[in-house]
Amino acid sequence: MDDVHARLVRAKDASRATARLTSDDKGSALEAIAKALVDAADEIIRANGQDIERGRADGIGESLIDRLRLDSKRVTALADAVRQIAALPDPVGQVVGGHRMPNGVALEQVRVPFGVVGAIYEARPNVTVDIAALALRSGNAVVLRGGSAAKESNSVLVRVMRDALDAAGVTPEAIQSVDDFGREGARALMQARGLVDVLVPRGSASLIETVVTESSVPVIETGAGNVHIVLDESAPLDWARDIVVNAKVQRPSVCNAVETVLVLRPAAERLVPVVVPALQAEGVTVHGDETVASLTSDVVAATEEDWATEYLSLDIAVRVVDSLDDALAHIRRYSTGHTESIVTTDTRNAERFLAEVDSAVVMANASTRFTDGGEFGFGAEVGISTQKLHARGPMGLGELTSTKWLARGSGQVRG
Amino acid sequence: MDDVHARLVRAKDASRATARLTSDDKGSALEAIAKALVDAADEIIRANGQDIERGRADGIGESLIDRLRLDSKRVTALADAVRQIAALPDPVGQVVGGHRMPNGVALEQVRVPFGVVGAIYEARPNVTVDIAALALRSGNAVVLRGGSAAKESNSVLVRVMRDALDAAGVTPEAIQSVDDFGREGARALMQARGLVDVLVPRGSASLIETVVTESSVPVIETGAGNVHIVLDESAPLDWARDIVVNAKVQRPSVCNAVETVLVLRPAAERLVPVVVPALQAEGVTVHGDETVASLTSDVVAATEEDWATEYLSLDIAVRVVDSLDDALAHIRRYSTGHTESIVTTDTRNAERFLAEVDSAVVMANASTRFTDGGEFGFGAEVGISTQKLHARGPMGLGELTSTKWLARGSGQVRG
Repeated sequence: MDDVHARLVRAKDASRATARLTSDDKGSALEAIAKALVDAADEIIRANGQDIERGRADGIGESLIDRLRLDSKRVTALADAVRQIAALPDPVGQVVGGHRMPNGVALEQVRVPFGVVGAIYEARPNVTVDIAALALRSGNAVVLRGGSAAKESNSVLVRVMRDALDAAGVTPEAIQSVDDFGREGARALMQARGLVDVLVPRGSASLIETVVTESSVPVIETGAGNVHIVLDESAPLDWARDIVVNAKVQRPSVCNAVETVLVLRPAAERLVPVVVPALQAEGVTVHGDETVASLTSDVVAATEEDWATEYLSLDIAVRVVDSLDDALAHIRRYSTGHTESIVTTDTRNAERFLAEVDSAVVMANASTRFTDGGEFGFGAEVGISTQKLHARGPMGLGELTSTKWLARGSGQVRG
Repeated sequence: MDDVHARLVRAKDASRATARLTSDDKGSALEAIAKALVDAADEIIRANGQDIERGRADGIGESLIDRLRLDSKRVTALADAVRQIAALPDPVGQVVGGHRMPNGVALEQVRVPFGVVGAIYEARPNVTVDIAALALRSGNAVVLRGGSAAKESNSVLVRVMRDALDAAGVTPEAIQSVDDFGREGARALMQARGLVDVLVPRGSASLIETVVTESSVPVIETGAGNVHIVLDESAPLDWARDIVVNAKVQRPSVCNAVETVLVLRPAAERLVPVVVPALQAEGVTVHGDETVASLTSDVVAATEEDWATEYLSLDIAVRVVDSLDDALAHIRRYSTGHTESIVTTDTRNAERFLAEVDSAVVMANASTRFTDGGEFGFGAEVGISTQKLHARGPMGLGELTSTKWLARGSGQVRG
């Protein structure tokens, strides 16, 4: 087995080649990957079956099994996402700024690939393909470190993609996995300043915390979503019910699912007796405060811990607050800065909420499930950034590039 | 003395107020700061005199004394920079993206302040004012940690700026210094995730290394500049001489000064005997390889260490390389990714250099001294980012903002 450092050096070397690929070259390579994934569907699903079997034996929960699973439909969706990415405009070379200096030097700011993008993630094997495809489309090499729960799936996916690159005339070294180095692979990635240009952790809050704390490579934080919906006094009953139910139930295991609903007191009597049973009818366990419990039945008493919890399951916390001020204060205290939405027909409250909530995506009258690269039209997403540096919210191709300044002069010196 | 955490919390609270200031409010506050600085010039220069006296007693070098010094002209320049920043367009609220989703949800990506900007820097007291003004103009609060060499100067500068804010009706808590906490202040800043949104280290390579390694707050690396100029076979003699001399001599103590000149072998005999004496005539010590020494006199033998050194003084390394490939390889190995320039009239070589050098600013036929926020038209600069995340090259106002997505719907849910 070669050492992890050597593998990172090969990624860096490969990144100089991928940076110079034309859009057409990159498009063809991605088409080749998409085709190879479909051709290898049986093999991928078989490897995934081993992961799921081992997961069940290890007693991992159903929400994790759901994220881990690749069936024939999901493999097709993976290949489709790669084709969508191949069809997106190439960000590399785009001129994003510039002007002529008074002395005649022409300044131009252009998008360039980062170089090497590292990703550390958990159970979802689709991340392996999404990130590799997005990285390549934007001219980067990629180093992947997936969760051990998906190791068989990822091993096949990486091999299939590397073989497809090779056949398409692109160096397969542009896609590296360090899964076989275990925790040492993750550590090496986090300390690879100068070899890895940016690191994207995707997964649980504790994974992200570890990467942020231990990495000396610049990190883009993604994912943890303690997501709130505020039901204003003016919230229409149907919007309130439909948005809360959709945001919780449509796919509870992902980061843009709502976790806490804050109901303004003047609306509690009107909304709680409808919204809570609608959730319960879909199998949701409602953790409510005393007011919520007094207005409806089968409510589990909420504790302080519930406000801070990203359930990622069919659980939800519901709290009645006295005012929009109190709702904003609750969000300031407990939000992870991912997505918050208000249901209201009061323009003043909607605009105040949009202005004052300090999250990546702030909504009025829409389901938090829309915070998603696909929904935002990016083709697929690298993750949802919850930090403020470089990228915030769903990250697409542009977020996987840096810029550089080009200056063309004719002998100018500074006076 | 209150504790450092309480001070960071006050900065965070203040950042909610600064985020909502109008452009006019911010402009007035900055005008008030500019005026207050000029009014307090004598006091500032007196405090600076104490710092310089202590510095000389401690035996710090002349290049450090130069960076530390505030005379009447430099105080006026400080105030002018603040006024220039006040006059710049406000980035906050600028719409940078967006579209209507197929289901009718209106998506809008707008610039918002980061919140709290932290800065850790060394001897230059102008950084105190530049960063505070840039942070305020872009709606941020700022927490400053200056070098102990400038502590008297910084203490007066911070007090003058806070008093001016107060008089202008803006909370003075928007400008905080943690200088009085010594190293503990720097440590607290680096660990203040959730309170400090971005941290900018400015200064020596070792300062930056420490901050990058120890900070869990997102960092923008700035400054260290092992800057190269390549003299191509086609380099005109006058451009080569004027650009190299200007890039080394005009202000040797700053990061955009050139440190190594790489001469292509076919041009060595023509260029070295002119360029090296021109440098020496300006008092520069030339560290050269054997070929350089054979073509001119008074050359100090260069060692491996010279190629890696950011002198920040009237020293320069000169090496003869066989080809542009070798020059590019040398730059890949030793560059800190700040600025590199080529002197050439060969378009093919110029464009290859511009495309392949992976630095924040890549030039053809211009002095590296142009890599500067003022020269780039940003009014002043927060620093020069040598990393690839978020900002690369001179950072101005836009680089001190994040974005957020606003989504305005009418009850939409995800299907």
